[in-house]
Amino acid sequence: MEGFSDGVFGFAITLLVLDIALRPPGTPLQQVLHAWPAYLAYVISFLTIGGAWLQHTALTDQLAQTDPLFLRLNLLVLLVVVFLPFPTQLVADALRSASGERVYATMYGLTLLAIRLLGAALDAYARHEHLYSPPKEGEELHTNQRKFLPIVIAYVITILIGLALPILAIALYFCIAVYLVVPFREAARVLIRRHSPRQ
Amino acid sequence: MEGFSDGVFGFAITLLVLDIALRPPGTPLQQVLHAWPAYLAYVISFLTIGGAWLQHTALTDQLAQTDPLFLRLNLLVLLVVVFLPFPTQLVADALRSASGERVYATMYGLTLLAIRLLGAALDAYARHEHLYSPPKEGEELHTNQRKFLPIVIAYVITILIGLALPILAIALYFCIAVYLVVPFREAARVLIRRHSPRQ
Amino acid sequence: MEGFSDGVFGFAITLLVLDIALRPPGTPLQQVLHAWPAYLAYVISFLTIGGAWLQHTALTDQLAQTDPLFLRLNLLVLLVVVFLPFPTQLVADALRSASGERVYATMYGLTLLAIRLLGAALDAYARHEHLYSPPKEGEELHTNQRKFLPIVIAYVITILIGLALPILAIALYFCIAVYLVVPFREAARVLIRRHSPRQ
Amino acid sequence: MEGFSDGVFGFAITLLVLDIALRPPGTPLQQVLHAWPAYLAYVISFLTIGGAWLQHTALTDQLAQTDPLFLRLNLLVLLVVVFLPFPTQLVADALRSASGERVYATMYGLTLLAIRLLGAALDAYARHEHLYSPPKEGEELHTNQRKFLPIVIAYVITILIGLALPILAIALYFCIAVYLVVPFREAARVLIRRHSPRQ
Repeated sequence: MEGFSDGVFGFAITLLVLDIALRPPGTPLQQVLHAWPAYLAYVISFLTIGGAWLQHTALTDQLAQTDPLFLRLNLLVLLVVVFLPFPTQLVADALRSASGERVYATMYGLTLLAIRLLGAALDAYARHEHLYSPPKEGEELHTNQRKFLPIVIAYVITILIGLALPILAIALYFCIAVYLVVPFREAARVLIRRHSPRQ
Repeated sequence: MEGFSDGVFGFAITLLVLDIALRPPGTPLQQVLHAWPAYLAYVISFLTIGGAWLQHTALTDQLAQTDPLFLRLNLLVLLVVVFLPFPTQLVADALRSASGERVYATMYGLTLLAIRLLGAALDAYARHEHLYSPPKEGEELHTNQRKFLPIVIAYVITILIGLALPILAIALYFCIAVYLVVPFREAARVLIRRHSPRQ
Repeated sequence: MEGFSDGVFGFAITLLVLDIALRPPGTPLQQVLHAWPAYLAYVISFLTIGGAWLQHTALTDQLAQTDPLFLRLNLLVLLVVVFLPFPTQLVADALRSASGERVYATMYGLTLLAIRLLGAALDAYARHEHLYSPPKEGEELHTNQRKFLPIVIAYVITILIGLALPILAIALYFCIAVYLVVPFREAARVLIRRHSPRQ
Repeated sequence: MEGFSDGVFGFAITLLVLDIALRPPGTPLQQVLHAWPAYLAYVISFLTIGGAWLQHTALTDQLAQTDPLFLRLNLLVLLVVVFLPFPTQLVADALRSASGERVYATMYGLTLLAIRLLGAALDAYARHEHLYSPPKEGEELHTNQRKFLPIVIAYVITILIGLALPILAIALYFCIAVYLVVPFREAARVLIRRHSPRQ
């Protein structure tokens, strides 16, 4: 199951670059610079799928076994992850053409929220059915669980903001993606260790 | 062989999202809502390829060894699985343009039937050549074998229905895909266990 | 290295279906039937990449170790395998439009020949550098070596035929692909065993 | 993590062939021959991503463990690797249309430089955090470290050259890609061994 899931995540994250192919008219330098909404959407989506993969791999690394229902729930998570490149492209188009941002930003936010909720459902199911092995390096998994509620609340608020101010919402999705991926505690620990005697 | 097969299934399932890129004219909200045939085809095909993967992975998990003929039969299964995104796109186009449904629904049904028949042939060959290890967690494999005959009959009937009522046939393909993927017995077992003392 | 190679083979084989998207004008039934050159090219290329994967996997399954030069030679094999979808599409276009077959069939044949020669070079290098483990299940590898010379001769002859009769050459490439993938000896052995007492 | 990274490298390297689909007008032979900038860009990018994969796999083969920060740094490397097909296509277009080479060659060079710098950062982090196992076959890793400084200097000089002479810069990127991938020392060792008594 891990090989299949890793393949699907890997492919979905690679498909994102195909959306940068569009270029507005102008000199080569202007074309490259004016494509910034596509670059931004690429980075946001890459961080989002990357964050979902980090969450997923922390979960599957801990699994001692799977069962039929778990495999199906996992397929459901992948169904939404694979869908993400579509609203991503819509958001990039909307940023470029300055129209339709409201609809597309909402669709994008709902997809992000669905990925997070389904990922949490997968985690809850594995916990309930005792599919996890005794925790060895479960720190990553706990980080995901600690970050779950603030992130769901942030997504819901951002979706509501997006109905009035879609550009602000897209900026907020970027901040959430960074918050998801950057391990602040870990980074702080490494920095602190640098300034103290080696363990 | 598992890495290659998992990769091929993973790519085929991810390619499906590329077909949602087409959008009819209208306001952004109308465009997103009117693309429902594409979403429906995406979900049906995702469930179908996902179901084929579940069947395939249950089979390969049980394998103690492979032989040259098995590897070739497996390639034949993948040949049809990789082909599926093509009739899927045709069905989605037909739903949108309300023309040609009959031809495309038939082609789609024949592809689904071929995936199922070749998967069963792979299973029968592995059984005949004693490639399976003694059953440990063969429940999933048995579910596939139990579901085989009803599903083949359902596909044949639906293909015939599709010659007269293609839209009904597409709805039936959706029901079959759900039946393939949802493990009713397992789900019932989990629900029952919730209401009884823990084992 | 196996995961990367399997991924590249799997993706190259899945890309082939994207080339079937083109459809000539006509009624839906005519469109589907008139796309036969695309189906044919899909099957030939699928068998060819599948055959190259079978050869490659037989080789890597036997490896006890790799070395830096082997990894580079392997990259060179992948470079040509990934290139194959391009001449495949050209051949399919040529069959459809009945023009340019000569150039495209030659290009297609040269690519197939290069895959075979580089695969044999990889095998020869692994043999020379003693990278193989002692043979356990080396039958598949020996089949590849036994088939090498007839196949190279067949490719060279077919490339020359293609300069005068490109359509015949494409038919011959199909026969070679079938010869590459179908394990006649194995199939005969299984059939013979069916009619004799079980071992 | 290796499965996911290998998948992403594999897809990114396979996506490159999609860029060869464009063909200029003319007879079939002219079309095939005039597409040389696309072939050249394909080979350069294949060698570059292949070189980055060789570097990456030498690094991950040595890992005894990972940590959350390492997984994130690895995502950052992949973010730039997946981006590479985009400037590659721009360079191929520029070679064909003889316009915009300066902008695109600079963008291409900056992407190559970023891949190299982030790869070195990943290596430095793994070293600093003691993530590596005791060296068994670390030769490849040492080759990467030995080649790091000359390659970064070469990239910076080539980017500067590209501002004035973009075509020369593209030729130099090709030479650097060959230098990255070809293991001169290893090849020399194998050749010398051929002419001396076997070990």
